[in-house]
Amino acid sequence: MNISGENYIGYKNSAQNSETFTTFNPQLNIPNSWSFHEASEEEIDEACSLAEMAFPIYKQMPGAKKAEFLRTIADEIEGLGDELISVYTQESGLPEGRAIGERGRTMDQLRAFASLLEEGSWVEAIIDSAQPNREPQPKVDIRKMLFPLGPIAVFGSSNFPLAFSTAGGDTASALAAGCPVIVKSHPMHAGTGELVASAIITAAEKTGMPNGIFSNLNSSGIEVGQQLVLNPKIKGVGFTGSIKGGMALYNLAGEREEPIPIFAEMGSVNPVVVLPSALLENGENWAKQYASSIMLGAGQFCTNPGLILAIKSTSLDSFITDLGKEIGELESSCMLHPNIHENYEKEKQKLSNQGGVNVVAENEKSVSPNYARQKVLTVNGSNFLKNNKLQREVFGPFSIVVRCEDANQLEQVISKLDGQLTGTILGTSSELEKYSKIVQAIQSKVGRMLFNGVPTGVEVCPSMQHGGPFPASTDSRFTSVGTSAIKRWVRPVTYQNWPEHLLPMELKDDNPLEIMRIVDGEHTNRKI
Amino acid sequence: MNISGENYIGYKNSAQNSETFTTFNPQLNIPNSWSFHEASEEEIDEACSLAEMAFPIYKQMPGAKKAEFLRTIADEIEGLGDELISVYTQESGLPEGRAIGERGRTMDQLRAFASLLEEGSWVEAIIDSAQPNREPQPKVDIRKMLFPLGPIAVFGSSNFPLAFSTAGGDTASALAAGCPVIVKSHPMHAGTGELVASAIITAAEKTGMPNGIFSNLNSSGIEVGQQLVLNPKIKGVGFTGSIKGGMALYNLAGEREEPIPIFAEMGSVNPVVVLPSALLENGENWAKQYASSIMLGAGQFCTNPGLILAIKSTSLDSFITDLGKEIGELESSCMLHPNIHENYEKEKQKLSNQGGVNVVAENEKSVSPNYARQKVLTVNGSNFLKNNKLQREVFGPFSIVVRCEDANQLEQVISKLDGQLTGTILGTSSELEKYSKIVQAIQSKVGRMLFNGVPTGVEVCPSMQHGGPFPASTDSRFTSVGTSAIKRWVRPVTYQNWPEHLLPMELKDDNPLEIMRIVDGEHTNRKI
Repeated sequence: MNISGENYIGYKNSAQNSETFTTFNPQLNIPNSWSFHEASEEEIDEACSLAEMAFPIYKQMPGAKKAEFLRTIADEIEGLGDELISVYTQESGLPEGRAIGERGRTMDQLRAFASLLEEGSWVEAIIDSAQPNREPQPKVDIRKMLFPLGPIAVFGSSNFPLAFSTAGGDTASALAAGCPVIVKSHPMHAGTGELVASAIITAAEKTGMPNGIFSNLNSSGIEVGQQLVLNPKIKGVGFTGSIKGGMALYNLAGEREEPIPIFAEMGSVNPVVVLPSALLENGENWAKQYASSIMLGAGQFCTNPGLILAIKSTSLDSFITDLGKEIGELESSCMLHPNIHENYEKEKQKLSNQGGVNVVAENEKSVSPNYARQKVLTVNGSNFLKNNKLQREVFGPFSIVVRCEDANQLEQVISKLDGQLTGTILGTSSELEKYSKIVQAIQSKVGRMLFNGVPTGVEVCPSMQHGGPFPASTDSRFTSVGTSAIKRWVRPVTYQNWPEHLLPMELKDDNPLEIMRIVDGEHTNRKI
Repeated sequence: MNISGENYIGYKNSAQNSETFTTFNPQLNIPNSWSFHEASEEEIDEACSLAEMAFPIYKQMPGAKKAEFLRTIADEIEGLGDELISVYTQESGLPEGRAIGERGRTMDQLRAFASLLEEGSWVEAIIDSAQPNREPQPKVDIRKMLFPLGPIAVFGSSNFPLAFSTAGGDTASALAAGCPVIVKSHPMHAGTGELVASAIITAAEKTGMPNGIFSNLNSSGIEVGQQLVLNPKIKGVGFTGSIKGGMALYNLAGEREEPIPIFAEMGSVNPVVVLPSALLENGENWAKQYASSIMLGAGQFCTNPGLILAIKSTSLDSFITDLGKEIGELESSCMLHPNIHENYEKEKQKLSNQGGVNVVAENEKSVSPNYARQKVLTVNGSNFLKNNKLQREVFGPFSIVVRCEDANQLEQVISKLDGQLTGTILGTSSELEKYSKIVQAIQSKVGRMLFNGVPTGVEVCPSMQHGGPFPASTDSRFTSVGTSAIKRWVRPVTYQNWPEHLLPMELKDDNPLEIMRIVDGEHTNRKI
């Protein structure tokens, strides 16, 4: 398939704007050949209008039909074959194996949501039967379930060109919920985005979806996204990226007359608390695992371990030495884009210049352009407590080990941390009890708690929580990974005294979809 | 018990500020004798600090212990006896029967949340077991459940001095979720508020709750509430009141560094769509029922039917005549406060002065001070479509009947409506099918759909949705009535690879609380 560089406005390709931009091959350090038309104001408005018209049609389609659409998207993405992998690698600098893995994850996510729809219980159907003889007043029949919000705008991330972009978790969950989606394509991988958009459009046509169920807008700047967020037809926004970008959207949305949910998954340094016993026997092993975790994907994971917190000891000294040695031996790898690489070098330098920090390991070798040279620093607890800059996320293979005086100082350090996606504890289970205050302190700051592991690698499953207290995300009550992500795009509607045969399938007496419901207080999948 | 007029800062009574205010008896048209000390900045800060300290202690208490606290609050409110009823009526102008009914509802709500906690499944426990042999990578054990957000600020409503105030739905749901609560007492019923606050404090002491689990702040102006919403220790806000008040808080919260959920339940005109057959046989009956619904509680219900939409016909003419006759025969009743009465008369006059409106019924009799004289207007569809003011809520016994030319115009009128708490359809079930576009249009605007009934009277049950698209509320995804309200004050936390014996009870293998969970995709209350 050829990359047209055009916008996908529902079922129509459109290139009203003569202004174009290109993507960049960071491995070769040259621009890619495709050029992309910036979406025009009219195109954005048309995408929103089509989405608004598609909404009532799509909303009423049965879950099985929506599931068929999602499964067909997955198939069509698979059908893009090697071309998708090739464009992905050219636009991201990431290796082919990663591209194939991420494609698999993207298809798995779409199919997981399809299964969720086919099973059907996710709508949280609750039924309270009538009690015509209740005193002092009779009780009427009341039933409730979840319905979609309306058109959703999705801003793909730079670091996951497939799994958190055009047909990534935000799009999959919004389509599953019953919402049309308009993607503001990430400018660093607009070609990958177009290929995936074409797969979604083909799937939509094949499964008889209404025009406007999906649009894909190209943009190298911020205006297209701004216009999208301010459009009154948009009823929710999903974003994955930096704190700066996420908060700009969040604050912009504050200018809307109608408040809408803005889910921005932003930054995190994913603190790792190393309790004393962890390093007594396993120090070398943890050093090896953490060196790999810091280096994974050139450190461009939102769950990258950027902060390692421990109480000073000789075993900690050994761990730091081992970590430095292990990470020093790993090969650097290519970052997503020269801008990201440049920003990495700048931020790394800024933190290296802070008072009281010492270098544990630093790759000072000459490397290919856009390759990220890893660095690990250490600082003592009191210097960390004095300087809030030291908890800033550096997007890349970078981490700081904080050596605390004692458990009290460690607890102080934790209490000073911002909200995070994850918090990890290394130690023994008896230490989890001994240091329960530390465990509680971490729990209050994060969305996911890990014991004896590395935070990188986010399982896509119903029990996953990806999102944490601000500023890790703008709304810690929802997840952007796993099937619970569907809950971001819905609201409950109650039917009171409604004729039984006109109720939605999920609320009918005979429970034709055989879903789990709460009927008069009891969890059951039985008929009434 | 004497009304002290002091603030309740945790377990301490406090009156730092010499500035005081009084409440007003609208029936007697004289101020009440009690005087209330405005909360000082220091008192507000202290309440927030105590709540923050109480949070980690309260959060970890088992559900059964929290339930005991809620049940004891209900008992203590009951124990206030006649004094509560007397102060309630003196501060609201509402009759004793209403006071007793609302007290019952308040206690029922507290006990319903206690039952929810005792049952325990509300935490949405999800468990995905480890699969150590999964290819290409092993899967680790992951488990998730809901945890409380932190201290919550509650702004009671004027129109429900008990059920939506100090120990009302917001407070009950936040305490049930595991969050300390700070109430900004409503200045119109600060005495009722203090009595209920004393019941909560007594219950907290009796059941061994930490100091700061609850505070009650007096305030006649807006500053105390503003300071509360901006305090970084506050993690969520519940408000019931006007659009103006709710949006002021919502916008103020935008100035916070950390975004927090703001649940403002604001205004609604609760449109009633009258389909043609409804009036053929039942016209007189509906006229009687709607006259009562409009007059209920002096029209001071958030679900008051302020807009009746119908297609012109001779049966509509008869209905309008009957409605006018029925409502004209009802006695007017006392409003909550002279300010509310004055505002009612002003807003009623404003809408009466709009172009094209005709009076259906108007009470022009001389009435006691603060009594609300009912009024019903009619306007044709085209005039309604031209004038957005005609859909403004008039808080009181007031309604407008819109006579549409045909079904198309009726649909246009509906599409022009703002978001609403409720939408009601009167007709036959075959008409619901015939006018399915109208039904869909109403569904997209409301939180609760009713068939052949009146919107006033909100059942407190798991299937209730009280809250609708903006501006009915700031977040249509949550309800402020019914047990689902607990979901406003929680966020999920995931435990990955956590030692089984240290997991929260709800996530342990042997399911000691016997709650319903989703285990490897299956809804079950079995052990693992």
